[in-house]
Amino acid sequence: MKIVLLSGCSGWRLWPLSNEARSKQFLQLLQNEDGDYESMIQRIYRQICEAGMGEDVYVVTGGAQVDAIRSQIGWKAGIIEEPSRRDTFPAVAMAAAFLAYEKCVSREETVLVLPVDTYVDNEYFEKLSCLDETLFQNTADILLMGTKPTYPSAKYGYILPGEKLPVSGNGAGCLKVLRYVEKPSEEEAGELLKRGALWNTGVFAFRLGFLTELLRKYTDAKDMQAFHADFEKLPMKSFDYEILENHVYMAAIPYAGKWKDLGTWNTLTEEMSEENIGSARQGESCVNTHVINELSIPVLVLGAKDMVVAASPDGILVSDKHKSSFIKPYVQEMNIRPMYEERRWGEYKVLDYNQYDDETKSLTKHLMIRAGKSISYQKHYHRDEIWTIVDGVGELLIDGHVRNVRRGDVAYIVKGQLHAMRAVSDLQFIEVQIGAELSEDDIERFEWEW
Amino acid sequence: MKIVLLSGCSGWRLWPLSNEARSKQFLQLLQNEDGDYESMIQRIYRQICEAGMGEDVYVVTGGAQVDAIRSQIGWKAGIIEEPSRRDTFPAVAMAAAFLAYEKCVSREETVLVLPVDTYVDNEYFEKLSCLDETLFQNTADILLMGTKPTYPSAKYGYILPGEKLPVSGNGAGCLKVLRYVEKPSEEEAGELLKRGALWNTGVFAFRLGFLTELLRKYTDAKDMQAFHADFEKLPMKSFDYEILENHVYMAAIPYAGKWKDLGTWNTLTEEMSEENIGSARQGESCVNTHVINELSIPVLVLGAKDMVVAASPDGILVSDKHKSSFIKPYVQEMNIRPMYEERRWGEYKVLDYNQYDDETKSLTKHLMIRAGKSISYQKHYHRDEIWTIVDGVGELLIDGHVRNVRRGDVAYIVKGQLHAMRAVSDLQFIEVQIGAELSEDDIERFEWEW
Repeated sequence: MKIVLLSGCSGWRLWPLSNEARSKQFLQLLQNEDGDYESMIQRIYRQICEAGMGEDVYVVTGGAQVDAIRSQIGWKAGIIEEPSRRDTFPAVAMAAAFLAYEKCVSREETVLVLPVDTYVDNEYFEKLSCLDETLFQNTADILLMGTKPTYPSAKYGYILPGEKLPVSGNGAGCLKVLRYVEKPSEEEAGELLKRGALWNTGVFAFRLGFLTELLRKYTDAKDMQAFHADFEKLPMKSFDYEILENHVYMAAIPYAGKWKDLGTWNTLTEEMSEENIGSARQGESCVNTHVINELSIPVLVLGAKDMVVAASPDGILVSDKHKSSFIKPYVQEMNIRPMYEERRWGEYKVLDYNQYDDETKSLTKHLMIRAGKSISYQKHYHRDEIWTIVDGVGELLIDGHVRNVRRGDVAYIVKGQLHAMRAVSDLQFIEVQIGAELSEDDIERFEWEW
Repeated sequence: MKIVLLSGCSGWRLWPLSNEARSKQFLQLLQNEDGDYESMIQRIYRQICEAGMGEDVYVVTGGAQVDAIRSQIGWKAGIIEEPSRRDTFPAVAMAAAFLAYEKCVSREETVLVLPVDTYVDNEYFEKLSCLDETLFQNTADILLMGTKPTYPSAKYGYILPGEKLPVSGNGAGCLKVLRYVEKPSEEEAGELLKRGALWNTGVFAFRLGFLTELLRKYTDAKDMQAFHADFEKLPMKSFDYEILENHVYMAAIPYAGKWKDLGTWNTLTEEMSEENIGSARQGESCVNTHVINELSIPVLVLGAKDMVVAASPDGILVSDKHKSSFIKPYVQEMNIRPMYEERRWGEYKVLDYNQYDDETKSLTKHLMIRAGKSISYQKHYHRDEIWTIVDGVGELLIDGHVRNVRRGDVAYIVKGQLHAMRAVSDLQFIEVQIGAELSEDDIERFEWEW
């Protein structure tokens, strides 16, 4: 069985901690049993490994997330990079094509697709492990996992189950799917609830051959190069709308254990074991309030009830928990660049940005490169950069010449000059950018063998 | 008549905008009729000038506020600097000594003492202008101004009035003071209210000779040098406790116009004409909520009711307005250095602070020196500083040598090196401090003639 994790892009709902560059699944806000903080992707990957299913895990994602995934879950899982972000149907298709054409996986192999951002306990993985065996009993083309709804929500998919299928083993209890309805109105959802419908947990299992067969409708590709070329032809739709709503031969395994979508501040804070993360203090008058502070300055909250306060280099959110799901349009309007990014080599945060006139802007960053890592050999066309090393030891490469740098050293990199840095020990430096245009896009990368 | 403004130190109640270095009276949060923002001290000084009383104004303050006062109200008002902060009785005594011994003001001259942080309209100044004339009619040693209380507060002083005094002119209505009670319990305050007591507005007028005479009880000083030497002997008490509670020959003028103590976020936000200052957005679901944001990152507030959100380089406050008066113990506990300061030469804010190990700290600042101003010629014993000019033109002085600097220039100032900077045009630069000890106290200042 191959496990495919869908690592989507969701920068809005958990703003300001999530942004264009840092999706919610990378926020380290959940505490494991040892008391260490982990992100949603770290948690689910750890749980998969603990359930003994960590051998064949692939993460489908866009290029922007590759650094963060490698930094958070290491190098054992495969990464399947989408040429562009086009919703979950193209993402699943990409994974199937990659497994079939690149990895030459058998047509009979079960593919299990999981969302990366659900909050579940270990029982979920026990249940998942039976999907392979159940599929093998020819129950259906696609196997789903359904959970009992708690209210008629308009944001989930609904599985309308029929008779019990003759399945033995752990999959006993498997039900035929009569109909699948993605995101109905609340009224329809109420009707579906009356008829015993289940919420879709976002899990689906199928044999690889079933999906590659189905993909013939969209592309003739038989290798990855051809598939890449045809990728833009795939409809920009979710797997639920494109496949589940239109396919009749499906079955579902009911799941009664813990399952939660940590998509909003309201639901996420319910799973946070600490009321304050980071430098934060709440007065005794506060009730059911959570503070997550990634800034180095303190947050003090007095007399707040049912609120979430989240602060990051991107901004500050103060919200009633129930209103926090309405955040999206406000954040979209702001249209600001990400002020914090986790990268393959370390991380940076923006400290200061100023525009003095049309020709003059300055931007100050704090960067951290982890020992042994390096930032790419690059140049900029529109800015000078002044680097001041504040801690650690590194190798600075400028126009082909390497010199050692340590705390207190300063490097002046003028427009057009090729430069890179490799950290010998964890390296911290302050970068001051000066120029008429200061953008992450003003970069040309080159090869260098350290 | 000489006007003495008491500019005290109050860094707690309006945290994080006020701090050790920036008292509440310097926060530019009030809008004047032209729509420009002004601080409490700017507002009251403007009102004094508009009432035609701006000729003889003195501000009594500690040395730490001199830069901010000069920067906000200019050079026309005199500044009387206290050798140390010892409450309002020593402050008023200092002002009296300064006027008598340094300025040789006549013993018969009226001295009018005003707090700097009350929010009043122009009627208040009309009333003040009659205190001189009333005092001249020998009504009392000390004239107060009282206003009708609205509730039995334990935080004000109470004037218990007796019969009307035979005063003619604008001071008609002047009442004998039977008793003065500073900060009674709420119960006592209730009793006083029943007996017609008034709140003290913090205004008092007396003849200079009355106070210098009274000071003989504490010191024999007859010149400023001797007075300075004896300053520490003065009791560390408020004028209200030390004088008003113990003096019988007082009268009070009732004042019915607007009077407000802008001491807490709750009272201050009532006078703010805008709900958002700085980069701030409130969702439609917000009610009676104010946001003051001095950071460059945006603040978004959803579903808040009766709240104040204040963000500055010192920290972030989220508070129910009514609870905001309980802020003091929380802020005292934090014990953090000021991250923003307004200085005579311009301003700075701290962008970043990190401690890597016992020997290694770094601190990054953005500084702005106004055209024509300079920072003092100084050296540090425990840190190197790297300055990167990001805008403007200046003269950099290092160990007696001056060189011109402009945008893009970098200066490396090592421990022990003498340095200063003068701005030719408004000068912006980023300073990275590196050292084992990073404190504003690690500074030795020298003279330099530019």
